[in-house]
Amino acid sequence: MQTKVGIGIDIGGTFTKMAAVEPSGKVLREIQIPTNSGQEASRFVRRICSLVHLMESELDVSAAGVGLGLAGDVDSERGILRFAPSLSGWNNFNFKRAFARRIDRAIVVDNDANMAVWGGYVVELKRRPANVIGVALGTGVGGGVILQGKLYGGSTGSAGEIGHTRIERGGARCRCGGRGCLEAYVGSYGIVRSAKELLKKWPGKKSGLRSLAAGSGKLTPQLIAQAADKGDPVAREVWSRAGACLGLGLANLVLVFNPDVLLILGGVSRAGKWLIDPVLKEMAAQPFRTPFKRVTVRLAKNHNFGCVGAALLALDRRA
Amino acid sequence: MQTKVGIGIDIGGTFTKMAAVEPSGKVLREIQIPTNSGQEASRFVRRICSLVHLMESELDVSAAGVGLGLAGDVDSERGILRFAPSLSGWNNFNFKRAFARRIDRAIVVDNDANMAVWGGYVVELKRRPANVIGVALGTGVGGGVILQGKLYGGSTGSAGEIGHTRIERGGARCRCGGRGCLEAYVGSYGIVRSAKELLKKWPGKKSGLRSLAAGSGKLTPQLIAQAADKGDPVAREVWSRAGACLGLGLANLVLVFNPDVLLILGGVSRAGKWLIDPVLKEMAAQPFRTPFKRVTVRLAKNHNFGCVGAALLALDRRA
Repeated sequence: MQTKVGIGIDIGGTFTKMAAVEPSGKVLREIQIPTNSGQEASRFVRRICSLVHLMESELDVSAAGVGLGLAGDVDSERGILRFAPSLSGWNNFNFKRAFARRIDRAIVVDNDANMAVWGGYVVELKRRPANVIGVALGTGVGGGVILQGKLYGGSTGSAGEIGHTRIERGGARCRCGGRGCLEAYVGSYGIVRSAKELLKKWPGKKSGLRSLAAGSGKLTPQLIAQAADKGDPVAREVWSRAGACLGLGLANLVLVFNPDVLLILGGVSRAGKWLIDPVLKEMAAQPFRTPFKRVTVRLAKNHNFGCVGAALLALDRRA
Repeated sequence: MQTKVGIGIDIGGTFTKMAAVEPSGKVLREIQIPTNSGQEASRFVRRICSLVHLMESELDVSAAGVGLGLAGDVDSERGILRFAPSLSGWNNFNFKRAFARRIDRAIVVDNDANMAVWGGYVVELKRRPANVIGVALGTGVGGGVILQGKLYGGSTGSAGEIGHTRIERGGARCRCGGRGCLEAYVGSYGIVRSAKELLKKWPGKKSGLRSLAAGSGKLTPQLIAQAADKGDPVAREVWSRAGACLGLGLANLVLVFNPDVLLILGGVSRAGKWLIDPVLKEMAAQPFRTPFKRVTVRLAKNHNFGCVGAALLALDRRA
């Protein structure tokens, strides 16, 4: 018997990734193409749909469902991209309808962070705990909320915007224009900014980051994590601060959602213990114990669940 | 035909309130007795159960359900009061079992804020929007979360602890021992503290609050609201600050829950426009629009839904 296959598509600002995925999360085939958001959305969808058909014929399967994740504010019911700074030419385009015209499959459209969190949920938390909050740490900070085993979208499909919850009144400037958002402290640009500020504040402190910071744009969370591994005091302080901020933001979510698991995904989470230890310390310091005794903090092993999650959600909705 | 009646009981630190309530929320009979948490819980429950029977015989009804709200952390499934600073003698007591021994009715046990929010939801939002976050502003700040028309308890029944979400790292001291909790700014003690601080900071500013603040413990949110009505500049600034903090805390909830309605209950909400105008201003200033365009902020007209909500939840669970 042939295995069931879902096809997931993750349209980001720069790249579009596609994967044919089994229900277990096993990836059978992957493609990556540049996202050309300068061209008309309908033309780009046509190209994607040809690639879906190509994948199907190469694997000799007919996909049971197609999932599409979009980097922006998505009306998942109607399948419309409402607003996306990095895909601005395609705002208000109805992706679901455009796909349905070309592909005779169940189409699921949602925010890319929701898709990634769903992927992490299915693949990494095999026992599917009832209530899971996922936070995806990349350049920006996205999130997804799973309640009673289902992706919770809220009243307009915008739930889980964890990155823009604010942890400090009048705090650090965020890309969104606001101040004090969680993203401004734990998004990759916030972490790099924090490192540059610390280097300036501690001019005498020896640090391998100093030469990196001088070369414009070279400093990344990954390099800061490597420096921390080698004992760099500035790098360690950067993570200690970022982790404390993340811990505070996550503690707020534990208080309102009382989840079983907090799942941390995305590239920044590769920092591992440098990020997670201060988070756990923050959790342990909470006065209101019950929900914190319950919750487990998990770092996802795979950091790129975008199209896998989209494929799995499409399969799940078909089941 | 006789109308269906639920009996709600709200055990607070000082008083216990009981009400016989119709499904519409109409209160047929009310009783208030002092909470004597020095005595054994089982004896107190026996007394309450006698009063339930008394109410039933006076009204010539048999209650369809009994709801119990407790001011603390409640295991609503098992009906245990896990932890309550103001009812500390009764920690870990199984109220559900104690009631079930004496009353042959469906018993629903939950946190008092959840009960109050449920009451406000049924009585004040008659069309029952799907997703509603309620915040109860009293001495402390409690909350309740209604998702898809149902009270959401989270994994241990502790969801909705809005009062202890933090809006400022290292901010004002909260009763819970933490810093920067929403409650520390918009609980009644936080508001009174803020007034006293402002009076100290502005020694030359004329204010009717000054003489009140000198007499110990006389200053209340209600008096500060009355002063604001009369144009007192210190009082107005107190509300402007408290409202901005509440707005920030509520905006965080809008971002993660994407609800239809934010329902504000509790005594402090009597301040009306002094509290709500800065909340709306904060909401309007949010960069991420979709969820904020959707949500409506409602001040409950009735400020004391504790036992009404308990009765209604018991009726709802029976239906």
